[in-house]
Amino acid sequence: MAAAPPSALAVSLGDPAGIGPEVIAKCWDNRNEFALPPFVAIGDPRSIAAVWDGPIEAVDDPGQADSAFDYALPVIQISAPQADMPGHPSVAGAHLAIDSLEIAVGLTRSGSAPAVVTGPVAKEQLYAIGFQHPGQTEFVAERCGVAPANVVMMLAGPTLRTVPVTTHLPLVRVPEALTSALIESRGRATLRGLQRNFGIPDPRLAISGLNPHSGEGGQLGREEIEIIEPAIAALAAEGWRVSGPHPADTMFHARARANYDAALCMYHDQALIPIKALHFEDAVNVTLGLPIVRTAPDHGTAFDIAGQDRADPRPMASAIRMAAENAMMRAEVTV
Amino acid sequence: MAAAPPSALAVSLGDPAGIGPEVIAKCWDNRNEFALPPFVAIGDPRSIAAVWDGPIEAVDDPGQADSAFDYALPVIQISAPQADMPGHPSVAGAHLAIDSLEIAVGLTRSGSAPAVVTGPVAKEQLYAIGFQHPGQTEFVAERCGVAPANVVMMLAGPTLRTVPVTTHLPLVRVPEALTSALIESRGRATLRGLQRNFGIPDPRLAISGLNPHSGEGGQLGREEIEIIEPAIAALAAEGWRVSGPHPADTMFHARARANYDAALCMYHDQALIPIKALHFEDAVNVTLGLPIVRTAPDHGTAFDIAGQDRADPRPMASAIRMAAENAMMRAEVTV
Repeated sequence: MAAAPPSALAVSLGDPAGIGPEVIAKCWDNRNEFALPPFVAIGDPRSIAAVWDGPIEAVDDPGQADSAFDYALPVIQISAPQADMPGHPSVAGAHLAIDSLEIAVGLTRSGSAPAVVTGPVAKEQLYAIGFQHPGQTEFVAERCGVAPANVVMMLAGPTLRTVPVTTHLPLVRVPEALTSALIESRGRATLRGLQRNFGIPDPRLAISGLNPHSGEGGQLGREEIEIIEPAIAALAAEGWRVSGPHPADTMFHARARANYDAALCMYHDQALIPIKALHFEDAVNVTLGLPIVRTAPDHGTAFDIAGQDRADPRPMASAIRMAAENAMMRAEVTV
Repeated sequence: MAAAPPSALAVSLGDPAGIGPEVIAKCWDNRNEFALPPFVAIGDPRSIAAVWDGPIEAVDDPGQADSAFDYALPVIQISAPQADMPGHPSVAGAHLAIDSLEIAVGLTRSGSAPAVVTGPVAKEQLYAIGFQHPGQTEFVAERCGVAPANVVMMLAGPTLRTVPVTTHLPLVRVPEALTSALIESRGRATLRGLQRNFGIPDPRLAISGLNPHSGEGGQLGREEIEIIEPAIAALAAEGWRVSGPHPADTMFHARARANYDAALCMYHDQALIPIKALHFEDAVNVTLGLPIVRTAPDHGTAFDIAGQDRADPRPMASAIRMAAENAMMRAEVTV
């Protein structure tokens, strides 16, 4: 085992009117039950106090937070004109969400924090104030100097990890968006991520087909033959352990999952249906291909239930725990 | 509770060179452990004897089978020129598979058997001898005088039932194949099937979207707005309890599943990924929309492992058990 990270993980609050402040505070409440490492929230403490009665300690950096964590939720404060009401997003809140993300990523880039966990934001709110990135992932990639195309979204749960090759596209656009080069680059980033973040020296990647029964030898579509199989052959030629194309419906039962470390899927729902069916409460969004460790809970701001003490903190707890594990693994692997 | 069916369920052996004979024989071996009702195999007893050493009793009809079932596997014999070797499909075997299916369906149509369970066949073998139907389901529908379009394939497991609106199409063809009328008719057949086969008086049907996040208000595809929502409205106007379109990735976790009795999905893998991820060994293929009860295990002939004592009988056992349950339910509901 590597030593514990020397300072607290950086956790951005996300949109202050969403459930981010509530689930982060509940994670501190349940830090022993959830087996969480020290972390520091970054944002406006008033948005936490609005939904939680526990102790908050203002700190200047993740090192201070590490010692404060035993008796209070440490917060690196961002000053804001006024606190948002839970459930009522605003322009000021959107600015806070970006500032919180910026500082959390900066602390991690500089080595002050071992990893960053990002709270949920509302994209419409961010776009309204001029945010130029499709989402937080692309923002983090840019701040790390990595092209968004080389960054991969993995959904990781206790018994399954999946990566979608394409993400937010209408279904009818998926086949034309698939290329062998794209599958190869996503596959490579996934395999390297399994090595670096998860410490698997010789990872196994299972690659899905696109069509029912993986196209049944070309009778139900030819993308497997023309696009996916060449990508698999290219990755195999580089020495990676890849298999497929597998029929997507028979890839995700327990016996099948034992044969690979991650599944590379062709489209959003092909990757997200199985991970959420099996691991709804504990699937974590992990960004691979970055020089830092970044995770996030796989849920949104949930403005409709914010401030009602109804938000489930387990996804955020899973994201924090996995960030710490990945950071320790990276420290081991690169030392 | 209704009385037990008065005679044995009809189980066609399927292709004699596949795993059908083995899993059916193993079901008889484990009839107590699997809690199976009396059933009668229909086919060539030599294909069973080739892979199994247990007692076989030739019978003339399901009524005789009911009393023989305690001490031997009852078989309604079909004479064939010579027994097939396991793993080596042949023209004679394909003819046997069709004859076995024909007799099993006939016995059920006539009321001699309370339900039919069909063993796995190899479509290529059947096509080679002039079989005119896409699969066994369409054959059964035709013998029952039902148009194939009005018949629905349901995959039913202990905690989830799914129905695909479209089935064996290349993925890129799915959006153009979806119409409001098709979704409505599949939805109606599913709801009626939940009433008749599963005894749910006022069933709840959850209908999925096609695109990621159900199209996100039209930004990721417009099929939800233009095709799926009108179908939902039409079914609701008839008084059915329908909901959706739901994002497919958040429909299948335990809490979501508690809100519906079946999920109507837009394409093959959307329906089959979650059912097989959750219930690989005990998902049953149930044909709804027929005047009889018909189930099947959701696997193929598996010629590659036939005759090696490696086939798992649990899917066949689940299919037999569900056929009996559905038949009892129908007897209750229609009386």
